Formats: sequence, structure tokens, C-alpha cells
Amino acid sequence: MYSDNEQKSRELVAIEPAVVEELRSTAPADELVTLVAEMFHVLGDPTRLKMLYLLMKHACCVRDLAILIGVSESAVSHQLKMLRDRQLVTARREGTIMYYSLADHHLGPLFREAESHADHVSRKLPDHTHP
Amino acid sequence: MYSDNEQKSRELVAIEPAVVEELRSTAPADELVTLVAEMFHVLGDPTRLKMLYLLMKHACCVRDLAILIGVSESAVSHQLKMLRDRQLVTARREGTIMYYSLADHHLGPLFREAESHADHVSRKLPDHTHP
Repeated sequence: MYSDNEQKSRELVAIEPAVVEELRSTAPADELVTLVAEMFHVLGDPTRLKMLYLLMKHACCVRDLAILIGVSESAVSHQLKMLRDRQLVTARREGTIMYYSLADHHLGPLFREAESHADHVSRKLPDHTHP
Repeated sequence: MYSDNEQKSRELVAIEPAVVEELRSTAPADELVTLVAEMFHVLGDPTRLKMLYLLMKHACCVRDLAILIGVSESAVSHQLKMLRDRQLVTARREGTIMYYSLADHHLGPLFREAESHADHVSRKLPDHTHP
């Protein structure tokens, strides 16, 4: 059984069969696409993103993150749990206080690439590889 | 007027005032965070992400994308519009057919970093800078 959409796409005749064949054979696995999309989804929230920007510069406790972002401590804790589940943030205890920091050195380059794109979009410039 | 959350966070006393001060002075502008979060949000959808992976390898028309992804042509058109609005995808016409391709060379590195993180998460390995 196929959904209506799947059924429709199965009835379509390719415009460029050779390209479709080539792309089909090199397409990334669905599991990879799902994992990567989930990661982008987690980063696609301004509050979580702000937290990661801060933690990229300095380890921080829930209280100080709440002050910096302007939300409640429970809201910060909730978002930190999601970021820890995705292994984007780690925690260490000092006395009674938990300090959170960025878990992953991939995030720095990731943010820089995304910023660079955002910068192009906001300035409505063409991609700088094609000036 | 502040929201309840903002009011609560304004009443909090910093655990590490020096860190809060330092982070406050170097925090990215809200506009930048919003733009970057919007871009991650667009990438956080498996269908759009799959389209970008395909277009990264080869320019494609709506029909062939619909066949490859298994959705209707109108669903592909709808997502392509969003990707073009964000300047992630460009279009060129050949005769009666529009061919779409990746607009931005930042996406390749962005995907590789995200995949690398997804790979760590799925294999439950620590970040490889700290073996």
C-alpha cells in the first residue's frame, strides 16, 4: 500500500532518467537524512541557539543562562535537557552547581557557515563564489 | 512591560557576575541569531533536506525530484519555493523546463559538519577531539 503522494510519484515518467538513476544510486540513507534533519531542527530554535552561542564562549550554570537569555530557569533547564539528549551540551558538577558547556567542536564551524549564509541572505548578495 | 518570564529572569542574582557580564558584552545580535535559527529551521525538515542533498549533486527538475523523493510534484514545488525564498536554491530555465540547483557553497561544509555530529550521536561516541 502506498500513500496518495507515493502513488502519484510512482506514476510519473522521469524527464532525465539517467540523472534520476545516478542520484538514486548515490542518495544518502534515510536514517542519515533523518538524524541530520533532527539536529538542524534542534538548532532551529532561537532560544536554544542563543544558549549554544553563549556556551560556545564559556561554561555556564542554569541561573546565569536564564539571566542572559531573559527566560525562567525552568525554561533553560528544559532546553538544556534537549541539548544534552542530542549530545550537543555536556555538564559537570562543581559543589552544588552544574556547569554546562558545548559538547561538540563541530558546532563552531557549523555556526560560522550558517552565519555566512545568513549574512548573504540578509544583504541580498549572490553567493561569493560567483561574484 | 515585561512578560512573566522576563520579569522572573530580571529578579535573579547571577552566580558568576563576571561571566554574565563578559558573555553579555560579546553575545551575538538578536537579528543574527534569528536569521541563523530560521536557516536551521528550514534545513530541519527531512523532505527539504533530501532535496538539498540531491541538488548538491546534480541540477534537477520538479518532476525528477518528485520521483526521487516519493512525493507529489506540487509538494516538491511548495518546498522549492521555501528554499528559493531563503536563497538556498536557484533556478534556470531550459526550454519549457526549470532546473533547480544548490545556490550556496556553504551548504556542503554545513552538511558535512552536521553529519559528523549525527554520526557521533548515532554511534554514541564521545567527541573525537577528546578521545
